[in-house]
Amino acid sequence: MTATGPELTSPTTATPATPASTATHARFGPVEAEPYPWPYDGSFAPATTAVINIDWQTDFCGKGGYVDAMGYDLSLTRAGLEPTANLLAALRPLGFFIIHTREGHRPDLADCPPNKLWRSKRIGAGIGDPAPAGRILIRGEIGWDIVEEVYPVEGEVIIDKPGKGSFYATDLDLVLQTHGITHIILTGITTDVCVHTTMRDANDRGYECLLLSDCTGATDHGNYRAALNMVKMQGGVFGAVASSEALLTSVAAGPVA
Amino acid sequence: MTATGPELTSPTTATPATPASTATHARFGPVEAEPYPWPYDGSFAPATTAVINIDWQTDFCGKGGYVDAMGYDLSLTRAGLEPTANLLAALRPLGFFIIHTREGHRPDLADCPPNKLWRSKRIGAGIGDPAPAGRILIRGEIGWDIVEEVYPVEGEVIIDKPGKGSFYATDLDLVLQTHGITHIILTGITTDVCVHTTMRDANDRGYECLLLSDCTGATDHGNYRAALNMVKMQGGVFGAVASSEALLTSVAAGPVA
Amino acid sequence: MTATGPELTSPTTATPATPASTATHARFGPVEAEPYPWPYDGSFAPATTAVINIDWQTDFCGKGGYVDAMGYDLSLTRAGLEPTANLLAALRPLGFFIIHTREGHRPDLADCPPNKLWRSKRIGAGIGDPAPAGRILIRGEIGWDIVEEVYPVEGEVIIDKPGKGSFYATDLDLVLQTHGITHIILTGITTDVCVHTTMRDANDRGYECLLLSDCTGATDHGNYRAALNMVKMQGGVFGAVASSEALLTSVAAGPVA
Amino acid sequence: MTATGPELTSPTTATPATPASTATHARFGPVEAEPYPWPYDGSFAPATTAVINIDWQTDFCGKGGYVDAMGYDLSLTRAGLEPTANLLAALRPLGFFIIHTREGHRPDLADCPPNKLWRSKRIGAGIGDPAPAGRILIRGEIGWDIVEEVYPVEGEVIIDKPGKGSFYATDLDLVLQTHGITHIILTGITTDVCVHTTMRDANDRGYECLLLSDCTGATDHGNYRAALNMVKMQGGVFGAVASSEALLTSVAAGPVA
Repeated sequence: MTATGPELTSPTTATPATPASTATHARFGPVEAEPYPWPYDGSFAPATTAVINIDWQTDFCGKGGYVDAMGYDLSLTRAGLEPTANLLAALRPLGFFIIHTREGHRPDLADCPPNKLWRSKRIGAGIGDPAPAGRILIRGEIGWDIVEEVYPVEGEVIIDKPGKGSFYATDLDLVLQTHGITHIILTGITTDVCVHTTMRDANDRGYECLLLSDCTGATDHGNYRAALNMVKMQGGVFGAVASSEALLTSVAAGPVA
Repeated sequence: MTATGPELTSPTTATPATPASTATHARFGPVEAEPYPWPYDGSFAPATTAVINIDWQTDFCGKGGYVDAMGYDLSLTRAGLEPTANLLAALRPLGFFIIHTREGHRPDLADCPPNKLWRSKRIGAGIGDPAPAGRILIRGEIGWDIVEEVYPVEGEVIIDKPGKGSFYATDLDLVLQTHGITHIILTGITTDVCVHTTMRDANDRGYECLLLSDCTGATDHGNYRAALNMVKMQGGVFGAVASSEALLTSVAAGPVA
Repeated sequence: MTATGPELTSPTTATPATPASTATHARFGPVEAEPYPWPYDGSFAPATTAVINIDWQTDFCGKGGYVDAMGYDLSLTRAGLEPTANLLAALRPLGFFIIHTREGHRPDLADCPPNKLWRSKRIGAGIGDPAPAGRILIRGEIGWDIVEEVYPVEGEVIIDKPGKGSFYATDLDLVLQTHGITHIILTGITTDVCVHTTMRDANDRGYECLLLSDCTGATDHGNYRAALNMVKMQGGVFGAVASSEALLTSVAAGPVA
Repeated sequence: MTATGPELTSPTTATPATPASTATHARFGPVEAEPYPWPYDGSFAPATTAVINIDWQTDFCGKGGYVDAMGYDLSLTRAGLEPTANLLAALRPLGFFIIHTREGHRPDLADCPPNKLWRSKRIGAGIGDPAPAGRILIRGEIGWDIVEEVYPVEGEVIIDKPGKGSFYATDLDLVLQTHGITHIILTGITTDVCVHTTMRDANDRGYECLLLSDCTGATDHGNYRAALNMVKMQGGVFGAVASSEALLTSVAAGPVA
């Protein structure tokens, strides 16, 4: 585990980056997944595949953050942390393009829609209000940063987003296009909210997506299971679902081409 | 029921439109909803509220279309048709801004991502392939058009979209902004796919959304219920859910201001 | 000249399309251009290069259309028609991806910002008002369609756009991504308005753009020259500029790889 | 002059913000402008009008920055600094919503298209390369920050953008919508590149824009003049142009309603 905490990265990106040119052009796969062996085109390469880790922030899975303030059981959103840490440890040396997202707002709330603010205050977890981990969902606060277990390392990109989806009002699509990314592997929280919104928006743009079932969690277990199930409808309406073990098995099998 | 079929509208919009200036500035509400009385700001006006009806197309709820070709039970996606027709009959005279969406692709598939095409073919319902209601999910085909029960009338806007979300690669946001819309009421199919993706993207943009539980349906009843439940998390993470009866009760009670 | 008029295409696309798979993978170039030999990466292939023809509509270069109604000299906007027709005749057989755009609004003006409407009426060329070529800038009218000299042929994509830029509120980016396009060659009118806005937005997205100086024109000759000059600042701030002769010379020289 | 330098603000926003609710609802106008008295709807209010100041960075108008490295005459891009400082001094107390943009890239260049990078290196001003004011166009460097004369004060929003346009890959539209902004006043550099791209994209979205002729400049005087002229075509194709004196005269005349 090489993560060393918040001081490692600037608010907008880890630096210096691993040059994209170091990514290997080996291809792996397919991965045993539902409803089809992933990806649709048979194999995936580190050079064109991004691992997007959604909102592994204290606010969503740590003590004193937003989800904790709302009274949800943290063990549900924390369940995927260890598998995700293992996944990153295995994929980092292979040159996959690793991205992390953080939901959060400007300290002056200039980017926070009034209904989002109102709803959060109504349930006692007001955005911008003080909490044990700092002002809730505010950039720069302790609760807003990514937890230690899956903290970004040098060369990984961080996307700060004001909404649930990672494409809206961010440079994510530009970053993906600049790196020639065509395939996306998703981890993160919460499954039914930010992970799903991001997966849906990525899928509409043509990215081939895989959601790792054990590397994600939700504030409600039924919603977690339903979110996985929704992906599998209509032949894989948003992509496919696999365990991280299945993905790592394919990678361990070595390049296919 | 004034709908008279496809010949009424051009492929891109019903014409001529009811001028926006005829919309009433009366305000209604609130609506008994979960997890909070909708809307967050207490009331909603026809002049600033859009009713967006998602993908009530033969391809998703009619015989010989896409969902039928995939083998799903059509009664699930058709369940919301009658409540939606009743809703439209009640709201049309009041000046609400009524929008309809249609998922579909260009006949040459220039806008169809290859993975979406591949998945559809894999399950025997290939986009662009011939089916009883015409080429599946292709603009201009019978199966692609909106079913008679909720067919657009003059002055209503139709949004043609290539994806699941209604904001991506369309002029929906421009149309909403041009009309000063701030509140959105959603009906349509399927709850967990196109309706939810649209609601999520609208919510990230700050629109205050209400999903009508009886005016929507999915290809799987569990997913339908879960999709409704997901909205209610975190104090209404994507907005609120109500029955159409609750909405119509508020409207019948008359203007509040 | 293979164009046969409006009846050839549907409102949204020509059908059936030439499959993308017929595009050649030959590479041509570089083209003698300013301020650098285009493209930056040395060569361009029909399979990954789009020729985007902007707004060659009667409304912008024909009698009885929008620009005519405003009183501008049509010879300025028509000047690029013949070179563009020659260009298309040369590039069509090689498998380049050819796109046409049309600026226009829904007949009910649902997508027309009120200030745009107001300005057009103030100068006596109101959007939606009757003119010799039909309602000004309205989809489906004669004046809105593309002129005969460069009319789309089967397999070419038409993008209908409500604004000056071709990316905003359209599916252009999706279409380009779906076809793996990385390079864009621009023709059309007017140089300083719709062509430039599209080139700027394409450039920000990372597309490598070439504007053909003799295949474009403006309502003011000084603005035309300045628009070409602006491209060349800062080492090619929006891309490069060349004559169509220079481009065709490179193509005639045959594949470089 | 209240600006106190870089330590005042975080990289993403000045904090804490002046609450939007302090903005006055007085309306001013119209402003003597070309080609029509601005705005089209007769008057503008601080509560719904944003002043967007484009890229007043050392990289574009200071010694040792990007434009200096390219060898352009800095007096051209600096010409608008004093009028802009005077403008801000006059408008700040009235509650206008003041926004500043900065063009720049992530330190690892993850958001820098390869052609943009290549062009900059070709002319000896490579993005990310060391220069007297730090790495060229890189976030966090001295050259990237806003110059002292027009430095943001508390409560003003800063938009960091990777491209020439301010809407692409940023949260600008979300911020404008959240604050109910409908009118935009533009200052900044350079007129023909980042200011014009932003004005064009704002105009397509329906914002009513005014460009202040003495509060902007370009690396070429001919391009500066042409950029102003282009706005005035077609009855104000992108909005209107006025001097800051004309604007301040309207404001000094007091509220009209």
